[in-house]
Amino acid sequence: MAYVTIRDVARRAGISVSTVSRALNETGRISPQTKAAVERAVEELHYIPDSRAKAMRSLSTRTVGLLVPDIRNGYFADLAYAIQDTLFNAGYCTFIGTSSESATRQDAFITSILSQRIDGAIIVPQGEQSDALRLLLGTKLPVVFVDRQAKGLGGVPVVDSNPEPGLAAALHDIQRRGFARVGYVSGPVLDSPSLQERESVFRVIAAGIFGEENVFVESTSFERASCESVLRRMHGSGVDALIFGYSPDAVSAVSLLADSAVRIGRDISIVSFDDLELFRLTSPQISVISQQVQEIGQRGAQLFLDMLAGETQAASQRVDTVYAPRASVGKA
Amino acid sequence: MAYVTIRDVARRAGISVSTVSRALNETGRISPQTKAAVERAVEELHYIPDSRAKAMRSLSTRTVGLLVPDIRNGYFADLAYAIQDTLFNAGYCTFIGTSSESATRQDAFITSILSQRIDGAIIVPQGEQSDALRLLLGTKLPVVFVDRQAKGLGGVPVVDSNPEPGLAAALHDIQRRGFARVGYVSGPVLDSPSLQERESVFRVIAAGIFGEENVFVESTSFERASCESVLRRMHGSGVDALIFGYSPDAVSAVSLLADSAVRIGRDISIVSFDDLELFRLTSPQISVISQQVQEIGQRGAQLFLDMLAGETQAASQRVDTVYAPRASVGKA
Repeated sequence: MAYVTIRDVARRAGISVSTVSRALNETGRISPQTKAAVERAVEELHYIPDSRAKAMRSLSTRTVGLLVPDIRNGYFADLAYAIQDTLFNAGYCTFIGTSSESATRQDAFITSILSQRIDGAIIVPQGEQSDALRLLLGTKLPVVFVDRQAKGLGGVPVVDSNPEPGLAAALHDIQRRGFARVGYVSGPVLDSPSLQERESVFRVIAAGIFGEENVFVESTSFERASCESVLRRMHGSGVDALIFGYSPDAVSAVSLLADSAVRIGRDISIVSFDDLELFRLTSPQISVISQQVQEIGQRGAQLFLDMLAGETQAASQRVDTVYAPRASVGKA
Repeated sequence: MAYVTIRDVARRAGISVSTVSRALNETGRISPQTKAAVERAVEELHYIPDSRAKAMRSLSTRTVGLLVPDIRNGYFADLAYAIQDTLFNAGYCTFIGTSSESATRQDAFITSILSQRIDGAIIVPQGEQSDALRLLLGTKLPVVFVDRQAKGLGGVPVVDSNPEPGLAAALHDIQRRGFARVGYVSGPVLDSPSLQERESVFRVIAAGIFGEENVFVESTSFERASCESVLRRMHGSGVDALIFGYSPDAVSAVSLLADSAVRIGRDISIVSFDDLELFRLTSPQISVISQQVQEIGQRGAQLFLDMLAGETQAASQRVDTVYAPRASVGKA
């Protein structure tokens, strides 16, 4: 796609190109009204002045934009850390932004980095594809997705995890311990192709091991209350081994069960995705399906650096999930 | 201080100003060697082209740089979240960088944001004052410190916490429960004026309540092993009530004690600074001295917005710490 030009700004502001140029460069006399009109048009069109567009192409600032959903989620904090550490060691500085799992905030961040001099971006894409994301891809700056893909943007290389090995190992462990039924709390699947894939891989493997009639799946929203009702429903109907596809749900469950008479590892068995530090601090410790987040971050950053260096064969990569059994999975 | 000018670049590169100008603007024919020399000089001097310096002054990009030590530390993740949320609601986008508690990385981030168009910065300053920090303050862009001050930079407004109310309440609680001695694990104090202040406030209040001979203080490094030896030494010499000034040390302690026969809340009582989510998920839950991180973040962001709006009376603020007693503090 084409860059917005000074002509577009002039048209939007309803004044001549030379007046816009003088306003932008602060040369000659410009009325405050005209200056305001130019600034408004620049903002509305996300215009990047020519000199800056040139600078983008000619002088690297060794700066990379990184968008993650929420750094308060330990998984994304670890991911961001691994990426920026790899980039720093290669001489690049990272600007981290967060989308709060909102497409609007994602677009605000991308628009913002586009008005700066960055060398490219590493992104955990949010929801359906967005205008800002299309704009970013149109600039031909290197872009890598990590953690998940974005629908309709298959051309962007992705580093994510393969849910299959970890899920298979966890389900076999649950079966060996005598459980006849298994439940899956899938998280806010609609917002993430990765969560969707986890759920469908779970369904296939679990049905193969336990039989379809013994496999239960429920999704949650970002609200803690939705996790609480799913937990009550599952446990109430005798599903005593649960896998959480979305780790914040498992954190909520640990906290909810601490206030109840239901004991983890005895009355209910729990496995969660993501090897968060806090899952090793609870008592009992929580069994996890690790996405090997450090590996994802390092490979994502390396793939980005390869693209910056002109590597044209940048290919998507998957990191195998690994199951780590702990005391939160007991016997049936 | 003065901006670096195109003349400085020309002098450093050993070529004429007009040649530098042509190299930067990509007009006319420039040899690859000359172009490389210009790029090197630009990089070494952190030169910001005139057009960009002008743009900085004339057109706000509604972007703020935010530097925190480590987003994997839940306290700083919460702080960064509160700041960026407040700024987003005011129409500003936040670029987060991390220093990894290293002055070198801090300077790399500040240098990087200085070569972009940002409206100012909110910073958790690192160690002694740095060249990059002085450079940033010299630009007259609004800067606010949060969480801690930086030595020798008293002119910058700071939003931090007042350790006194929370420490006093915790120490009185420990005394009421019959403990005759109290210990303080102070963290890597050399790197943070806030940690230094916490330690000295603890010493004064604790000596007043327990008598100086019953007050024990040890500092730790960033290494988990240093926390382990302090913990063993304190507990071994009969100090069974401990306050942790640096929450990552308390997290290490919880994890170390889980692997031992020493039970928290029975054999040893623990209070930590920072109301981290994981302290509510352990069993028993850990008593905390909350810095009210959300309040610090919101006030820091608001102070920054006031400065942007031309408020010249920006004054430092302190947020009172609050003690939250939980089951990790038992009886002597």
